[in-house]
Amino acid sequence: MKQEFFELSIETPGKSLTDISGVVQRTVSEHGFGSGLLTLWCVHTGAALLVQANADPEVVKDIETFFEELVPKSPGKYHHRPSEDDNAPSHLRALLTQTQVSIPVEQGQLPLGRVQSLYLFEHREAPKTRRLKVHYIGT
Amino acid sequence: MKQEFFELSIETPGKSLTDISGVVQRTVSEHGFGSGLLTLWCVHTGAALLVQANADPEVVKDIETFFEELVPKSPGKYHHRPSEDDNAPSHLRALLTQTQVSIPVEQGQLPLGRVQSLYLFEHREAPKTRRLKVHYIGT
Amino acid sequence: MKQEFFELSIETPGKSLTDISGVVQRTVSEHGFGSGLLTLWCVHTGAALLVQANADPEVVKDIETFFEELVPKSPGKYHHRPSEDDNAPSHLRALLTQTQVSIPVEQGQLPLGRVQSLYLFEHREAPKTRRLKVHYIGT
Repeated sequence: MKQEFFELSIETPGKSLTDISGVVQRTVSEHGFGSGLLTLWCVHTGAALLVQANADPEVVKDIETFFEELVPKSPGKYHHRPSEDDNAPSHLRALLTQTQVSIPVEQGQLPLGRVQSLYLFEHREAPKTRRLKVHYIGT
Repeated sequence: MKQEFFELSIETPGKSLTDISGVVQRTVSEHGFGSGLLTLWCVHTGAALLVQANADPEVVKDIETFFEELVPKSPGKYHHRPSEDDNAPSHLRALLTQTQVSIPVEQGQLPLGRVQSLYLFEHREAPKTRRLKVHYIGT
Repeated sequence: MKQEFFELSIETPGKSLTDISGVVQRTVSEHGFGSGLLTLWCVHTGAALLVQANADPEVVKDIETFFEELVPKSPGKYHHRPSEDDNAPSHLRALLTQTQVSIPVEQGQLPLGRVQSLYLFEHREAPKTRRLKVHYIGT
């Protein structure tokens, strides 16, 4: 049984869901991981991880709309007033999904269902470089 | 230290919370697991995992009502238009709980509190057979 | 590779976000953990775990306000009627964050970002002693 730690860097175009299933699967293959548990930790508070459907781009549009409506931008609504006024709603949106996801890896393969993807959900409006800390334990 | 991978299959009657604590505990016992970490991964996007109270059936009713109100069925509200119109709200409801839960197993026992259960939260209206991929690492 | 199981006990003053990053980091150091995966499991259904920003106390205030608005106390709104009427909304609020968080530990350090904290989010009004079951696997 071995462990490895490393980082993944993901460029986001601002507010969006970026499908990172491919890059995570590629990373697993490149590291030669066999079977084990892969844990991703998003070190940011204005973006988070999410597993949902990829069958139709309309699903992603519905997720974005739902979050915009549930946590409106509304400057003036929030106590936290940083320089950029998309900061406060970003925190609230991010906490509704996951900072951390642990993914079983079986013989080098992620367990994703046929229409299931792992997304990085960016809530800030400006493009960002997001870092994921990655831990693997297994063979 | 060993690892095991297998699947659990759960029948849901459609839209409901199914308490799967018993079947997961039974699985741990049947596999003879000692101490380790058990990870469940739901391979579906219209159902997800959730840990909540089991003391009173009214709690489950409140959870169901809350999700119905927060993400109404409202055909026409969503962009995604699959054959069955409960598909779009199912995705939004599912993403508010967990696709993956990792459960410490100590001497063959789940860590659930006295009134705490692990549920599979089905959001589709029709009965479904749901698959959970399971990974165990430990003794 | 070793495993350890123990409990952490956290006093909450009632309804609040308690930053537990310090106590968790201290625990990791005191146990002499090197590199591995630390899993926290909250055995309660009226409190849960959450990773969010700590840069400004206003962020915490916004989180609390958001949850109060999303799941209002409103006695009479819920089916579940325990002795204390903050019980039903507590369950709904708790299920929107995490019962379980797994944290990669690299050379004795948690992976938290510069302004990122791990919180215990207490939803009951009365002060409580909350127990977290902890599992560690690693060196």
